[in-house]
Amino acid sequence: MRNDLAEENISIGYYGVPGSHTHEAMLNIFGEGCEEVYSESFDGVFSLLRDKKVKYAVVPIENSSTGGISEVMDLLNKYDVFIVAEKCMRINQCLLGIKGTTLEDIQEVYSHPQGLQQSKQFLQSHSNWNLFNYYNTAKSAEYVKECNNKSKAAVGGVKAAKLYGLEVINENINTNEKNFTRFVVIGNELEKTDEADKISIVLDVPHKVGALYNVIKIIYENNLNMMKIESRPIANCPWEYSFYIDFEGNLKDEKVRRGLENIQAISMNFKILGNFKTDC
Amino acid sequence: MRNDLAEENISIGYYGVPGSHTHEAMLNIFGEGCEEVYSESFDGVFSLLRDKKVKYAVVPIENSSTGGISEVMDLLNKYDVFIVAEKCMRINQCLLGIKGTTLEDIQEVYSHPQGLQQSKQFLQSHSNWNLFNYYNTAKSAEYVKECNNKSKAAVGGVKAAKLYGLEVINENINTNEKNFTRFVVIGNELEKTDEADKISIVLDVPHKVGALYNVIKIIYENNLNMMKIESRPIANCPWEYSFYIDFEGNLKDEKVRRGLENIQAISMNFKILGNFKTDC
Repeated sequence: MRNDLAEENISIGYYGVPGSHTHEAMLNIFGEGCEEVYSESFDGVFSLLRDKKVKYAVVPIENSSTGGISEVMDLLNKYDVFIVAEKCMRINQCLLGIKGTTLEDIQEVYSHPQGLQQSKQFLQSHSNWNLFNYYNTAKSAEYVKECNNKSKAAVGGVKAAKLYGLEVINENINTNEKNFTRFVVIGNELEKTDEADKISIVLDVPHKVGALYNVIKIIYENNLNMMKIESRPIANCPWEYSFYIDFEGNLKDEKVRRGLENIQAISMNFKILGNFKTDC
Repeated sequence: MRNDLAEENISIGYYGVPGSHTHEAMLNIFGEGCEEVYSESFDGVFSLLRDKKVKYAVVPIENSSTGGISEVMDLLNKYDVFIVAEKCMRINQCLLGIKGTTLEDIQEVYSHPQGLQQSKQFLQSHSNWNLFNYYNTAKSAEYVKECNNKSKAAVGGVKAAKLYGLEVINENINTNEKNFTRFVVIGNELEKTDEADKISIVLDVPHKVGALYNVIKIIYENNLNMMKIESRPIANCPWEYSFYIDFEGNLKDEKVRRGLENIQAISMNFKILGNFKTDC
């Protein structure tokens, strides 16, 4: 992603609704001047990009407490799109309610499953609360505001509280103090810049002994520091997996290119997902 | 797990409620003669076992379409419990409703997030339906029955339909025809049997170049066929991971024991999760 793009008046897609954590990440990356287009489904965000309705789009890919966002990983493999940037953001989940709500008033708590999961310990300490998975954190805040009832609360960010006129009852209720989400900017082209230092690839390996070992060996022997490996099931091939691997490198580097060629030669459905600047 | 245990009148815990897929898996493994204790939370199931309220417990660990059940993987690492058996079961998700419900009647569909996710394509082809994440598939069926309203449907198994008196409106609505869930039986002891042929371990590796490569190299060089590797985030250590690795072997085998000792020597928080007979 060229650094100057944030300056132009371009269309940017994002997952969620105004006030969601992804919206906040999008504003952090692109600033306030863009035309904003949101979709409440991950598939919807990827479609916006494919149909050229937006130049780039922002989706969460991983949370440091709850792990990879599986659906986004699968869509990165399915659609012909690429990661052009990443952004890590601290996520402070808060308990939100209408004005004057106290902990004693609350009977029902609404949030995205990730919001509930990240705040599990706090929520479990109030065993009489009923927890409800809801579309996303911002929509949960909106719902609580609409109900205008002190028995309902939402888990979400401070931004959602402000946007939907709720009060923060408890701040930082996430179980892990260090709770970060890694967001990625996706685009229709594989972009190559000098400052890129992280490469994401995805591949399948033949279902035989040592197949994955040989891939990792190439990475190691080319001194390409592997930062991450994660597996996802291959549809309709039970117990076979695609591997998502992140390692240090720049695609303009001859050593990197040679390593990738060697990996591609011994794997199937190989795809370079992107080359971008690390933000973690 | 000793083969004869299924014969005795023992207490078995399971995730979900009567009629859930895990309940069905439990009955497949242990038969009808056990005292059944269920919990609607994964943590609750693990607690039943820790508190010796049950001899064994059954939980889902992975679905062939949607991937690993993260919470169960994390709990296997957190609690001092072991995998003693596994069972793979084909999951046919069905659309369930009260008597006489047609596709045209439906406005709302309830299920466990996994049920909705596994049936995504079918559900998306009915764009006017509102989808609701609910506790589990069986409870969704119970709720639809209680509402007694043709505008509501649930995604769940045939067993749930029978138990809660619903009709199957559409069978096998899962997107992937081959849709399996792998369940595991957990117990308080690491059990060693002659027929065990799969070993599950979990470990952290030092945050330095080649650390994971060295672990996989030991597995490869000892001819221990690696069947699976999956990563999970380490709490409060953003972007550091625990690795769950399955490979072929029996703990009574000297070569296997030596390999495991070597792996333990170069890793942290090493734990043998279990040694059991493959069912996949």
